[in-house]
Amino acid sequence: MLSTKTNEIVVVKTETSKIEGIDFNNLTFGRTFTDYMFYCDFENGEWQQPTVAPYQPMTIEPSARVFHYGQAVFEGMKAYKDDNEKVFLFRPKENFKRINKSAARLAMPEFPEDYFFNGLQTLLNLDSAWIKPGIGNSLYVRPFVIATEPAISASPAASYRFMIICSPAKAYYTEPVRVLFAEKYSRSADGGVGFAKAAGNYAAQFYPTSLAQKKGFQQIIWTDASTHDYLEEAGTMNIFFRINDKLVTAPNNDRILDGITRKSVIQLANDNNIDIEVRRVSVNEIKEASRNGSLKEIFGAGTAAVISPISAFEHSEEVFEIPTTKDSYASLFKTQLLNIQHNLTDDKHNWRYEIK
Amino acid sequence: MLSTKTNEIVVVKTETSKIEGIDFNNLTFGRTFTDYMFYCDFENGEWQQPTVAPYQPMTIEPSARVFHYGQAVFEGMKAYKDDNEKVFLFRPKENFKRINKSAARLAMPEFPEDYFFNGLQTLLNLDSAWIKPGIGNSLYVRPFVIATEPAISASPAASYRFMIICSPAKAYYTEPVRVLFAEKYSRSADGGVGFAKAAGNYAAQFYPTSLAQKKGFQQIIWTDASTHDYLEEAGTMNIFFRINDKLVTAPNNDRILDGITRKSVIQLANDNNIDIEVRRVSVNEIKEASRNGSLKEIFGAGTAAVISPISAFEHSEEVFEIPTTKDSYASLFKTQLLNIQHNLTDDKHNWRYEIK
Repeated sequence: MLSTKTNEIVVVKTETSKIEGIDFNNLTFGRTFTDYMFYCDFENGEWQQPTVAPYQPMTIEPSARVFHYGQAVFEGMKAYKDDNEKVFLFRPKENFKRINKSAARLAMPEFPEDYFFNGLQTLLNLDSAWIKPGIGNSLYVRPFVIATEPAISASPAASYRFMIICSPAKAYYTEPVRVLFAEKYSRSADGGVGFAKAAGNYAAQFYPTSLAQKKGFQQIIWTDASTHDYLEEAGTMNIFFRINDKLVTAPNNDRILDGITRKSVIQLANDNNIDIEVRRVSVNEIKEASRNGSLKEIFGAGTAAVISPISAFEHSEEVFEIPTTKDSYASLFKTQLLNIQHNLTDDKHNWRYEIK
Repeated sequence: MLSTKTNEIVVVKTETSKIEGIDFNNLTFGRTFTDYMFYCDFENGEWQQPTVAPYQPMTIEPSARVFHYGQAVFEGMKAYKDDNEKVFLFRPKENFKRINKSAARLAMPEFPEDYFFNGLQTLLNLDSAWIKPGIGNSLYVRPFVIATEPAISASPAASYRFMIICSPAKAYYTEPVRVLFAEKYSRSADGGVGFAKAAGNYAAQFYPTSLAQKKGFQQIIWTDASTHDYLEEAGTMNIFFRINDKLVTAPNNDRILDGITRKSVIQLANDNNIDIEVRRVSVNEIKEASRNGSLKEIFGAGTAAVISPISAFEHSEEVFEIPTTKDSYASLFKTQLLNIQHNLTDDKHNWRYEIK
């Protein structure tokens, strides 16, 4: 057996790539997987041999704790390729820090930084052909950790698997979305796990979202669970409101994900001399702003969608349409972010991370 | 291929039982599994062929939605054997109803009642030798459902697996437990999934519970997330407080699990002419009752522990010891429940369900 102290990755190669069968112009998000995956098991109190192997089904006990007690956290990242075949990730150190923050909140072990970055390097080099150049193309990279110990008592597991799988992607949301402001259901509680990318946070949103979808709204903007008076986040996106020329977004707290696109937008707003306030945003403020014409834009910010304009919201059975704005901030930030991500412009904050 | 419309179970037998190697006097809860398991897949909009097969690892895609978005619900039940080798479950129809209620909240398909009960019958007959007679012995039965579809977009899965696995058990908690009243962390939000047996609800409790354990408290009694002023449940148990001769317990709501042992205790209190109030219970009321000597008992009620006496609680850095009470309600209910479960007494509410 190999020493458990090495972080050198074992690579199991495949002879045959699946890539020839893939229509990169017709990709459904998250359904096509690349040739390789990364995995590393935590056993006996330490992370074992990291491995890159062909993407394939795994074997796991039905009693694995992840199935019963939901110890599962993940990240979403994107790899981009420029016209010179260079591959970049966007602020991956933020994802690294956040997956360990999520893991800690769910009583899961932290993953070592060198394992994380060596894993990404090895994996993305092997899967490089899956990353297509050009704005709108990316490779969605999904690190995640699950509790694998076969034991069904309600306590933290002693064994885990860290994995990275990759899926080629086009833009996640293409059309502006219509949203519903939550009035009854909630995403997370004060003192809960809403700030973590915990698997259970997502399943909890599916049913309320399906009700919204039946009413013609693709997403929900969640409000605080105690009063439903303040707007928080959209589950897969943080939310920004433009009132006249000022941008406002909710502060981070233990209910709201500390979004990497969110913090990049805040930085870009500063870079563009756009007035931005990070503070509580009430439902009433936004309804009033819509009524008096000062609400110019609402948009979401997240890795999958990058920037997602919102064209209408509903609250208390009243629908508020948001008129199209010339010189929209959403377009500005999306262009600037994509240009940075695709190595088409300067990167003064060192957000690009090159895969070498 | 077999018709998908049959609910007749395919049984795959094993030649060798693992039972000879098991020390039934030294069982750690949830770590030993019986010879068989039940499973049934949901594909193309319907539940497929139900199967009982040897308990074994399963094959699943790393992209299965359960790992990423936490669509996973479960139940906990116990099978008991009387001295005539008859096997009984305790109120299994309640578990059946609840797993479907949990599933609906997580946008998962409901499981058919005949599949559920035929599966239990077939499985427990094959595993009957694993159920030992005698008070304190039981077979813990774990139905659960997981999202198996290999797709990492944040939306409900199209495919699922329903499974039942079984683990022989001794009593879950043997000693009275010391608990901490939650002041900072929360288990669930109004409008959230706290009432469901959703996997993610449990992982969220592990870290706060580990902090409590470092202070010498085995469990947390969760309070409402908005104010932390009202006592709710303990994560694996509902909670009862005895003030003088009156019993009080929190009402069900969308944050609190509708416990089967809880509702059985309420019924038994009525049967025993014990005054019981189902209403909000404030932290201050219980602290005051402890100070003035009227707090006689606190105990938890849940399938795993049945009845679990609590010997102390902490709040605001103050520890309140609960003196031992003669003629304790906890002992009374535990004895009455175990006698019903083990077929040692009348069953006037038809709580026993015989496996034939």
